[in-house]
Amino acid sequence: MKPLRIDVISVIPGFFESPLQKGLLHIAAEKHLVDIHVHNLHDYGLGRYQQVDDAPFGGGAGMVIRPEPVFACIEQLQQERQYDAVIFMTPDGKPLDQKSANRLSRLENIIVLCGHYKALDQRVRDVLVTHEFSVGDVVLSGGEIPALMLMDAVARLIPGVLGDSESALSDSFQTGVLDCEYYTRPAEFRGMKVPGVLLSGHHRKIEEWRRQNALERTQDRRPDLLDQETLSELKNT
Amino acid sequence: MKPLRIDVISVIPGFFESPLQKGLLHIAAEKHLVDIHVHNLHDYGLGRYQQVDDAPFGGGAGMVIRPEPVFACIEQLQQERQYDAVIFMTPDGKPLDQKSANRLSRLENIIVLCGHYKALDQRVRDVLVTHEFSVGDVVLSGGEIPALMLMDAVARLIPGVLGDSESALSDSFQTGVLDCEYYTRPAEFRGMKVPGVLLSGHHRKIEEWRRQNALERTQDRRPDLLDQETLSELKNT
Repeated sequence: MKPLRIDVISVIPGFFESPLQKGLLHIAAEKHLVDIHVHNLHDYGLGRYQQVDDAPFGGGAGMVIRPEPVFACIEQLQQERQYDAVIFMTPDGKPLDQKSANRLSRLENIIVLCGHYKALDQRVRDVLVTHEFSVGDVVLSGGEIPALMLMDAVARLIPGVLGDSESALSDSFQTGVLDCEYYTRPAEFRGMKVPGVLLSGHHRKIEEWRRQNALERTQDRRPDLLDQETLSELKNT
Repeated sequence: MKPLRIDVISVIPGFFESPLQKGLLHIAAEKHLVDIHVHNLHDYGLGRYQQVDDAPFGGGAGMVIRPEPVFACIEQLQQERQYDAVIFMTPDGKPLDQKSANRLSRLENIIVLCGHYKALDQRVRDVLVTHEFSVGDVVLSGGEIPALMLMDAVARLIPGVLGDSESALSDSFQTGVLDCEYYTRPAEFRGMKVPGVLLSGHHRKIEEWRRQNALERTQDRRPDLLDQETLSELKNT
């Protein structure tokens, strides 16, 4: 299988160094299931200072990334291969969810553009960007951490990245509800005991407990995730 | 001012190396406004292999972080100083938002516990953890990227971390609506022109355009963020 190629464009490419050498993205690259390239936007900057930003028209605080460097970088990449998506990480994008991650994990070549400073010139967004994703209703210093998040979420869904024993299928969101509570050894720790049913060896009862626990936790913490059908399951049992 | 001290607990501490040496968190540390310490959970692991995880009671795929190493690590930290919050990053936590980030930015000492593997033994969550935050409805390989996100969101709100020119006040979410579109030079790029009002120098009209643009974008992209009062502003203008 051809690895998922991800080209990341950032003004601080060094940020990605250790995250790409440790953990899941490193494992996925070692297995040739992802192929990540980080590009320095300053390499496409203007003039001897490789300028990439400028003051916003209309005034106000903060700097805005100019269109020329971004067009130059992305167009060079697009001359080399066809891209399925040019993704811009931005707080006003579509909230990244598991469904989008699933979809992205089946693509071949994607570009992930990290914002920085105050904003990105709107013309880049209008013309070059095909997908805009946000990662939570919180403002960050740049798109680097969101890009890591997108890459991690997507990479772990590529078959073979996780071992069988880590199957992603029962995760929170993958099934539409949050995951249940988990316990491991010791069975008793400082007087706190693991729920008896989990030690019973009774598989059907354990499955029932887990499903019920997952539903209750979802109702308690994230009722917005529950549809009517799932809710009725909670009430009827 | 005393820096915000953040103790991060992770099974892959090396992950944080370059993100703490580049970008906003590095700047905040250089200015002595944050003081981040990364701890290796394996240092508190069991036996000669410094084991931190074990199979879940009740069976199933994946491994669960055992209670002993986490208790040992956090209790040692708590002997050294008082913590205002012990935060666990988890997909079933409260979605991290700007309000929570604002609140956390005013604390003195916090612990951020990164999950990994399938889950964290529930007893740790019941007893030690004071806040659980999620960063989007997506499953990741661990809590390291979410921890970076929380630290970045919080650090940039500490007075002095951002320069005046980057004031965080007009950001998306900080004002309850998404940010407006931004443009910078050149005024015309490949035939695409910047909206004329932004070049007019007419401050009141620029502010009106920005507010209206922000409201329209919010209604289009994230209507869930708009309250009735803000909506009426959109209709009346």
